[in-house]
Amino acid sequence: MSDRYFQHTFSNGLTLLAEKMPGMQSAAMTLLVPAGSATDPVDRTGASTVISDLVLRGAGNRDNRQLTDYLDGLGLQRSASVGVYHTRFGSAALAGKVMESLATYADIVRRPQMPESGFEPARDLALQALAGLDDDPRHKLSVKLREWFFPSPYGRNSMGKQEDLEKLTLELCIADFARRYQAQGTILAVAGHIDFAALMDAVQNNFGDWAGKAPDPIVEMPPPGNYHHLDQKSEQTHIGIAYPAVTETDPDYYTMKVAIEILSGGSSGRLFTEIREKRGLVYSVSAGYTGLRDRGAITGYAGTSNERAQATLDCFLTELHRLTRGVTPAELARAKTGMKASTIMSGESTSARAGAIAHDFFIRGRIRTLDEIKAAIDSVTIEKVNDYLAKHPPGPFTIVTVGPRELKMPG
Amino acid sequence: MSDRYFQHTFSNGLTLLAEKMPGMQSAAMTLLVPAGSATDPVDRTGASTVISDLVLRGAGNRDNRQLTDYLDGLGLQRSASVGVYHTRFGSAALAGKVMESLATYADIVRRPQMPESGFEPARDLALQALAGLDDDPRHKLSVKLREWFFPSPYGRNSMGKQEDLEKLTLELCIADFARRYQAQGTILAVAGHIDFAALMDAVQNNFGDWAGKAPDPIVEMPPPGNYHHLDQKSEQTHIGIAYPAVTETDPDYYTMKVAIEILSGGSSGRLFTEIREKRGLVYSVSAGYTGLRDRGAITGYAGTSNERAQATLDCFLTELHRLTRGVTPAELARAKTGMKASTIMSGESTSARAGAIAHDFFIRGRIRTLDEIKAAIDSVTIEKVNDYLAKHPPGPFTIVTVGPRELKMPG
Repeated sequence: MSDRYFQHTFSNGLTLLAEKMPGMQSAAMTLLVPAGSATDPVDRTGASTVISDLVLRGAGNRDNRQLTDYLDGLGLQRSASVGVYHTRFGSAALAGKVMESLATYADIVRRPQMPESGFEPARDLALQALAGLDDDPRHKLSVKLREWFFPSPYGRNSMGKQEDLEKLTLELCIADFARRYQAQGTILAVAGHIDFAALMDAVQNNFGDWAGKAPDPIVEMPPPGNYHHLDQKSEQTHIGIAYPAVTETDPDYYTMKVAIEILSGGSSGRLFTEIREKRGLVYSVSAGYTGLRDRGAITGYAGTSNERAQATLDCFLTELHRLTRGVTPAELARAKTGMKASTIMSGESTSARAGAIAHDFFIRGRIRTLDEIKAAIDSVTIEKVNDYLAKHPPGPFTIVTVGPRELKMPG
Repeated sequence: MSDRYFQHTFSNGLTLLAEKMPGMQSAAMTLLVPAGSATDPVDRTGASTVISDLVLRGAGNRDNRQLTDYLDGLGLQRSASVGVYHTRFGSAALAGKVMESLATYADIVRRPQMPESGFEPARDLALQALAGLDDDPRHKLSVKLREWFFPSPYGRNSMGKQEDLEKLTLELCIADFARRYQAQGTILAVAGHIDFAALMDAVQNNFGDWAGKAPDPIVEMPPPGNYHHLDQKSEQTHIGIAYPAVTETDPDYYTMKVAIEILSGGSSGRLFTEIREKRGLVYSVSAGYTGLRDRGAITGYAGTSNERAQATLDCFLTELHRLTRGVTPAELARAKTGMKASTIMSGESTSARAGAIAHDFFIRGRIRTLDEIKAAIDSVTIEKVNDYLAKHPPGPFTIVTVGPRELKMPG
């Protein structure tokens, strides 16, 4: 497609994406397998998380120890996580080592040993991560806000429910692995110091004969929405807010993103200026965008002392409503400059680019160049933003609080 | 000194460091001012933190709002934080914008407005951050471990004590600013797409006539050490361990770093393998190095359920002691590969390099090249590591726990 970008979908439904980044010695890989929390069986939430651990406990002809030693021996910085749609495996290292690791990642997602001895520890770690949420009220809040805002199964906590994790067995994991770890819908993205022809060969050889089939349909259940309070004895109250926004493919997407940047970007963002700097109500306040494939949300967070919590919530909602009255040309210019600078700087990170092109393909079916993103930001005008904000008043709100007392909701 | 690196100390004691990074469009700046938590007056802990906020509330001829708007308008990603020795201001953006911001950073550290109206909000935010520690037991643990391991004032919580923050006044901040924000000991480092001559000119013009004088001497007080338990009602127990290690300038520094990497690097590290993978005792376990200018520490962390806490501590200490019996050539090779890969990848981040060259100069009085660091890692042999470990058995330990019950310490 160009000297810089490469895209190919194999007949089995696996897509290879690549970006050549001049001046880099490293490369980064993002491998998305269609085993996300939304595709966990309804009574086996958390299965993706346990499986994502289990497949790393030995693969191909390497046992657990040999596999770990081998990957660390390549100097790879690795990660594995479960999102809504995919289980994501990431790695970054000197480019040659990332290339060398591809055959082993094929072992991991196609031929894991999934040993009996690995199951209990893997499930136990998932249970421990879940229990640890109680010590991390801000993280707990974000998990609950997703659950209550997005329709199930998309809003699920990827960690799963305790009762489901406890019912899980190795046999169920093996069957579930066979159903969901497959070529159709898998995305493999590599960015950095790479050669397209060599990469294409390596992926063809290691993933080309992987079987793929269409995924099972997902049944949606409406979210509870509204206001929820989680009682927690503390001096602090954590507040989460969510309301609907356009999707990432909507023509208004960047118009909305610029509005969020005006609300929450840098130190001149309205939330920071009004709630933190002028009123001194909070230590931490922010807003952002959370997207699913077919819906989006503007989400907000504030953490404050209990006695300031009600004023913080009221002030936060006031700022959201004030947006509908429009923004200034100076705010627009700052927001666009900040977003373009971030875009350009992301072009200097192999990991950021591997993740971004994989996400682009999943959402849009194609890679976007950095120039295309910059042009999209540039095309946002004051008329577009103010028109969008006037037509999209904030709400209906889903609000979650974690702290010792419920707050009064707006009437 | 070379095409890639630049170093110059002005007659007022300010040092400019720079690294040219081919292929980058961005630049990053790290500005270290000699106002760290260790130089806070003994009854005014947290002053550095309040001042670091206050100086950003208007500087030169720009008031609070104008300053924030201007810096955001350059597209800068900014940060400010207080360390042991310095207050650190960081920024990253397109290289031209970072250059443009230098005059304004001179305003911030030399001519802040420090308005009356900004003092209460700044102090309030510091108090809120301090109160927020109670909701973040892992962070609280790391703060307390430093306090109890390092001699005062080096082990201080940079957030300060509540009673000291409450006594602080704007007048005290202004006097303290005048004492500590000065050229002598300030380090300004820039890395990325830069021109040495233009940078040198800009720094000369904006910082060249800044006055500097030798800092006040610091009086050390011995740390409490030993075992401390912080009672917190929770299902989780957090464990922190610290014991002495060599300094960063010691000839054995990389030998020790390789040993820590064997203990805690990647997924093949001993702590991860033994405590997490084999025993399933913890979700999170790690060890690392924490250095002051003239002393160092190996620190460890584990977070686990209350019923596994004692076994986790015992197992952690067993692994530390087992190190003295030596490591294998395979462990050594993996550790060196991992460390070298990280070093090379840090060379692809302007922010990482600006921070690294500033730190190098503070600790060593000069910039180290990435090749020098790689060579230092390469020079570590199995004999050196095993000899070092045999001669440096772990201990004496400072141990901190946060949770509902005290643990039994080793005899």
